[in-house]
Amino acid sequence: MRLSRYFLPILKETPKEAEIVSHRLMLRAGMIRQQAAGIYSWLPLGLKVLNKVGKIVREEQNRAGAIEVLMPTIQSADLWRESGRYDAYGKEMLRITDRHEREMLFGPTNEEMITEIFRSSVRSYRDLPLNLYHIQWKFRDEVRPRFGVMRGREFLMKDAYSFDVDAEGARRAYQRMFVAYLRTFNRLGMTAIPMQADTGPIGGDMSHEFIILADTGESAVFCDKSLLDLPIPGADTDFDGDLSPIVAAWTGPYAATEEKHDEAAFEAIPEERRVAARGIEVGHIFYFGTKYSEPMGAKVAGPDGQEKPVHMGSYGVGVSRLLGAIIEASHDDAGIIWPDSVAPFDVGLINMKPGDGPTDEAVASIERQLEAAGLEVLTDDADTRAGAKFATMDLIGLPWQLIVGPRGLAAGEVELKRRATGERETLPLESALRRLIDWHKAIA
Amino acid sequence: MRLSRYFLPILKETPKEAEIVSHRLMLRAGMIRQQAAGIYSWLPLGLKVLNKVGKIVREEQNRAGAIEVLMPTIQSADLWRESGRYDAYGKEMLRITDRHEREMLFGPTNEEMITEIFRSSVRSYRDLPLNLYHIQWKFRDEVRPRFGVMRGREFLMKDAYSFDVDAEGARRAYQRMFVAYLRTFNRLGMTAIPMQADTGPIGGDMSHEFIILADTGESAVFCDKSLLDLPIPGADTDFDGDLSPIVAAWTGPYAATEEKHDEAAFEAIPEERRVAARGIEVGHIFYFGTKYSEPMGAKVAGPDGQEKPVHMGSYGVGVSRLLGAIIEASHDDAGIIWPDSVAPFDVGLINMKPGDGPTDEAVASIERQLEAAGLEVLTDDADTRAGAKFATMDLIGLPWQLIVGPRGLAAGEVELKRRATGERETLPLESALRRLIDWHKAIA
Repeated sequence: MRLSRYFLPILKETPKEAEIVSHRLMLRAGMIRQQAAGIYSWLPLGLKVLNKVGKIVREEQNRAGAIEVLMPTIQSADLWRESGRYDAYGKEMLRITDRHEREMLFGPTNEEMITEIFRSSVRSYRDLPLNLYHIQWKFRDEVRPRFGVMRGREFLMKDAYSFDVDAEGARRAYQRMFVAYLRTFNRLGMTAIPMQADTGPIGGDMSHEFIILADTGESAVFCDKSLLDLPIPGADTDFDGDLSPIVAAWTGPYAATEEKHDEAAFEAIPEERRVAARGIEVGHIFYFGTKYSEPMGAKVAGPDGQEKPVHMGSYGVGVSRLLGAIIEASHDDAGIIWPDSVAPFDVGLINMKPGDGPTDEAVASIERQLEAAGLEVLTDDADTRAGAKFATMDLIGLPWQLIVGPRGLAAGEVELKRRATGERETLPLESALRRLIDWHKAIA
Repeated sequence: MRLSRYFLPILKETPKEAEIVSHRLMLRAGMIRQQAAGIYSWLPLGLKVLNKVGKIVREEQNRAGAIEVLMPTIQSADLWRESGRYDAYGKEMLRITDRHEREMLFGPTNEEMITEIFRSSVRSYRDLPLNLYHIQWKFRDEVRPRFGVMRGREFLMKDAYSFDVDAEGARRAYQRMFVAYLRTFNRLGMTAIPMQADTGPIGGDMSHEFIILADTGESAVFCDKSLLDLPIPGADTDFDGDLSPIVAAWTGPYAATEEKHDEAAFEAIPEERRVAARGIEVGHIFYFGTKYSEPMGAKVAGPDGQEKPVHMGSYGVGVSRLLGAIIEASHDDAGIIWPDSVAPFDVGLINMKPGDGPTDEAVASIERQLEAAGLEVLTDDADTRAGAKFATMDLIGLPWQLIVGPRGLAAGEVELKRRATGERETLPLESALRRLIDWHKAIA
């Protein structure tokens, strides 16, 4: 993609309304634009990252056996009256009246609707286990939206819902999502730690939050340092097999959010392994048994022919929120440092002298070769100062910068910069291309 | 994907609320489920097709130089007051009051918001031409939603917006979208004819609807038969070049919707070339100049330094509606016949004797080989009657059915059925695999 044909409205000044670094950087890098309090447009650069995050979330849901659906944003109030949550949900629910005076709402979550879908079509334990998920925009009318996409009102969430014939089946479903989440956040370039958590308005008996440690985190969290070095389950994990050992390894060491914190248990850990830090919640999983299936009549016939309410769990990932969390965990003074897996482009290709025939030709040829190898390239072909070009590339945080100018070209050389480390190296063009193509193969 | 692990809630009975065939078939095939009047959940099979349609729409928008963004569903009423459309839009607009008593709405379209994004970041003619599009859920509170996804209330639309320094630039932008639409609908397996149309609430001077001919179409349309055989512009079309000849070839012959129909002009066509038929609108493009940029102050400085309102156009494709339109144009008594390009799976692989060791093994091996070649396979491994298996496969309309049973296997043979023609052939397993893999390469 050529910058001259792209839409990348970089802000020169730091927007004063932005209180935290991820919000500032997303605005400055032209990733998002606020349209109303807590409601954002995703500009091209932001949307590319949002889609890459969504793709990884989706791949890991599919790997764990969940099946994708898509429920609408607008729901009927009657559905929520069945579960008793319509009145209980409070002002965070955006309530709507349509032209025929029917009460509707913009879904803040989908337990009721997925239960309705389930009860309308599944009758037998033979059709279980079943896990249905969707990635859809939700709305929660926060009293004070802030921190950009970290606490917006309209936000993109992946929510999965599992259905099992009994509590034991539901426990296995819970474990599958637990492991899927470990893999998901790791692939997103983050260290997320599962912590015991309160169940809140979803309800239920068992719940874990997945927390990223970041100085700017919204809440205090406590854990055993050993959790930071646990191995992540591989892509070859057998999700039909027994996942208990993996879950046990991750839930054995102490880890809890503030609400669930047990100071005595924490102090039982050797002092050098005690981590008291700030954390950002990026995922939340719940087992809540028959809380919705019972009042809503979602039953299946068991092997004995008797009908029983299904056991359910729900599993959320804040997809849009993750972009803020990733930036909070990965940035420096110059801007964003995208993890390789979700960077909007792989390489920023900087033409140091647009308009100079040989340089333009070399840049076009490099662009073609990298794109032919499957890399995504953003080519800065704008007639701007070198300083502005470098500042923009650092700000938007692509993994690599490849700097091509007439002087280097005369010697057959280019400059390659790795954004994460800041390392710059002058090397022959062919070596630079080879290094980028090999890197791309390795992360694919 | 194994049917035993999928979620495909086929309906045995035809839902009586469905008035047209696409609605009936989408419900029966377990593609959608109604959640409220004109509001649907997309079940796994429906979502797969929706995503494939969206992907083709996206690819052709990108090819034509449009850049993807994503605007939120909820908008501020104030934005619509700037253009004067807030009061004008009427009851089709879903109006919402948030917890702070601010007036909001669920976007039925996005001219105002994109104009706001443009004016906040673009200052100079040098940044033009620019075309920004998104694929997002819209809401129009139809007084009588019906025909399933063909006239729903919550629907998925691709809407693109072009910005140019003058009317001549805007004409070229219009032509790019015109050609992109010809390619898009053709790739979706449909013959769509551009017809002069009224501009309606969007406003403007120039407008074409893209219409699919189908007996169940909502409106009468009239055109010259020669339009049915015009060649579609190739993937190598130069969108930076002059597209006038292509547009001229498509707009020369007579074609108009009922509202714009000119009986005298129609009768000037030789009788054997007059087509009077029913049509379904699947796309609509508009040029409306400065209708929004003027009141909203979206200006750019021209080469002379003088600021002028930009010239705009908008370009819509009803992505979710297209699924209904495709089915209206492509079905038979037994069910849907998906065009190859958007079929949810490429092959329905039918195991005629699940539980029989050699058959199960052969089916698993066939599935692996086809998937390794990039085909998407839905394997019917359910313990059901042969008649039910065939009926389900015909209903969901995958391009191919590959039928594997113990008797055929003993002779090294399988049966291959092409859904569109109904042709069935018994042939050696290797030949069947080769044919499917070659077919897949050819359509890729």
